[in-house]
Amino acid sequence: MLELGQRARKAAKAIREASAQARSAALAAMGRHIRQARTDILAANARDMVRGQAEGLSASMLDRLKLDPDRVEVMARGVEEVGSQKDLLGEIMQDWRRPNGLHLQRVRIPIGVIGIIYESRPNVTADAGALCLRAGNCAILRGGSDAMESSIEITKALRLGLAKAGLPEDAIQLVETTDRAGVGAMLTGLQGAIDMIIPRGGKDLVARVQAEARVPVLSHLEGICHTYVHVGADPAKALALVVNAKMRRTGICGATETLLIDAEIAPDLLPLLCASLSEHGCEMRGDTAACAIVPMTPATEEDWRAEYLAPILSIGVVAGPDAAMAHIARYGSGHTDCIVTEDTDVAERFLREVDSAIVLVNASTQFADGGEFGFGGEIGIGTGRLHARGPVGAEGLTTYKYVVRGTGQVRP
Amino acid sequence: MLELGQRARKAAKAIREASAQARSAALAAMGRHIRQARTDILAANARDMVRGQAEGLSASMLDRLKLDPDRVEVMARGVEEVGSQKDLLGEIMQDWRRPNGLHLQRVRIPIGVIGIIYESRPNVTADAGALCLRAGNCAILRGGSDAMESSIEITKALRLGLAKAGLPEDAIQLVETTDRAGVGAMLTGLQGAIDMIIPRGGKDLVARVQAEARVPVLSHLEGICHTYVHVGADPAKALALVVNAKMRRTGICGATETLLIDAEIAPDLLPLLCASLSEHGCEMRGDTAACAIVPMTPATEEDWRAEYLAPILSIGVVAGPDAAMAHIARYGSGHTDCIVTEDTDVAERFLREVDSAIVLVNASTQFADGGEFGFGGEIGIGTGRLHARGPVGAEGLTTYKYVVRGTGQVRP
Repeated sequence: MLELGQRARKAAKAIREASAQARSAALAAMGRHIRQARTDILAANARDMVRGQAEGLSASMLDRLKLDPDRVEVMARGVEEVGSQKDLLGEIMQDWRRPNGLHLQRVRIPIGVIGIIYESRPNVTADAGALCLRAGNCAILRGGSDAMESSIEITKALRLGLAKAGLPEDAIQLVETTDRAGVGAMLTGLQGAIDMIIPRGGKDLVARVQAEARVPVLSHLEGICHTYVHVGADPAKALALVVNAKMRRTGICGATETLLIDAEIAPDLLPLLCASLSEHGCEMRGDTAACAIVPMTPATEEDWRAEYLAPILSIGVVAGPDAAMAHIARYGSGHTDCIVTEDTDVAERFLREVDSAIVLVNASTQFADGGEFGFGGEIGIGTGRLHARGPVGAEGLTTYKYVVRGTGQVRP
Repeated sequence: MLELGQRARKAAKAIREASAQARSAALAAMGRHIRQARTDILAANARDMVRGQAEGLSASMLDRLKLDPDRVEVMARGVEEVGSQKDLLGEIMQDWRRPNGLHLQRVRIPIGVIGIIYESRPNVTADAGALCLRAGNCAILRGGSDAMESSIEITKALRLGLAKAGLPEDAIQLVETTDRAGVGAMLTGLQGAIDMIIPRGGKDLVARVQAEARVPVLSHLEGICHTYVHVGADPAKALALVVNAKMRRTGICGATETLLIDAEIAPDLLPLLCASLSEHGCEMRGDTAACAIVPMTPATEEDWRAEYLAPILSIGVVAGPDAAMAHIARYGSGHTDCIVTEDTDVAERFLREVDSAIVLVNASTQFADGGEFGFGGEIGIGTGRLHARGPVGAEGLTTYKYVVRGTGQVRP
């Protein structure tokens, strides 16, 4: 494991000093090689699936694990799209002069070596490797054992692409052992070789990483997202937004988990909302006021704190924006929260005062996604407060240094 | 201790929602109250000094602890200057639209509650409190026991200033106990109330914080800074720069600890450099080649890794830029490194390839300072790679959120 770190550290220098064109060429070649290796990747994935079925993986885990020709094509195209993104390195973020003649610049540079610890989705191998490279970083990938054979084949294609562009293959390395000690070594930074860890997976994985990591962690925690329907909402928009925010895909972190609705409009609007949600197969759990309007399961304290990731919605009736924002501050996870209203003043107040990574007005919380933001993919959604928040694309995988040009200035 | 966190969390909402004018007014009032409380602050400091002398603090620690009327005035003026800085909150950092009509903005917001753990300098109380407030944050200050009485008086003045501007006094709180458990509670985030910890002090403090913290840490580690005199250097500039970089103040993190000089010019230039350094009272430790040119103590492996913070300089003779940069990559701490040369190509290569937070050409490493960068003060120099690097002023104490305005968009 330590050798992995040393190789990555060595490759990091070559990658950050390579030209933007070389990084782009490598990404294009990586996409091509994924496509060319489709048969091998699918054969490896079939072996992972057989083993997964034998080991009794759940249907949803098997779905996450499964690749088919379309999914391989999406993966290849995703890498190529990252390759066509603008290279960020060397960007002059600020430029100023001091009275003593010093010329200062803040210049964008890569973070260095990024460790990514993930679970059963084999496509993370390609996505994470590509985004790290776009930002000039090296990646040490530690995927789940379930997807190991698939990840090995995908990594081969990525490394071939690097080699084609004259870049060191060790810029992307896969940890091929699946013992927990390997993760432990990554969490302590492989003796200074890892600059940042990104966990992508369930709560248990993130909790372990946060407890044990001795290097900075870019965490993606829970998405307990709220949609608040204000008295000033357009009912038709509210209907479309709530159903989409909850039901478009229930398993993603940007899915709404709690609906808040103003008491003044609840008697008229809530029955319509619930009818439409029911039609889409959604179970509802309401507070006392909600249950009095539409018969449903009473919500408990745990419901307000639940990231269901399932077709279940908790519903609270509130007295207005103050109560709605107090609920979000108390139970939200600082991920994504939305207000539905035509009242601009109330909307602006909500956008200003709700302290989440993403705040929206009149748009589905399911837009919480790097692709939807125009970032050309994402390595996750940052729920911490430092460095990178919300959808994290290539830019969130960079940092900066200060470059100072003088003519012999000494400090008085 | 937990109450401290709850009070800070509550104050954080008021501070971030306050107007820029209110924060500026509070900072102006804080400066005024420090000046008005001068007699009380100096009396408290005198008690700290008496106790420090009785407890046998070293002369340099007593110097750090000591306040006099001038130092109090500098402290008051520093807070006032932070008050006259532009308020950063609400700044629209990016603004773009998506094809579906969504309007996205990245907006600057405060981090929240910042814990600062520091040692004997009482002025950190005022500096840190002021910078945190400028960026819209609340501060929980845990100063060293040596300076406790001084810090209590300074904090009183800061809180009076907050109250004068109608802001909650709990935006700045001082931990008045000095037991280690208090630090431990801060390092675990006071049950979710602290968003970031900044340790300001010696290596032992920083090491403890990094080992035990369960919240993000803005670390200020060692400054093993290099000045590299290239064959293309102007000898007069080199002389002035090296002496200033090493000897202006030897106890600050931007002081040069290692001089690297090209072999081609060392026979002529090194004797002049050493003569001038000697005159300024500097002890020199050289590699074999350096010792052959100017008799001096031979440097050991430890010398290349030493942050002396003292009038001692290690000197290495190198074969050229590659060797110099390899030395810096191996022994440097990623803080601040300088090249002295008139050769623009070599200078640009050094600025590009040396992977430190601050890289300079033809300017003293002692410019590594927030004030000198024009940041109006600093909370420290970040030596990590994430979030904020180099001198960290108010901007480094902010983060952002994404604000998304729609017209009913649902995600397909």
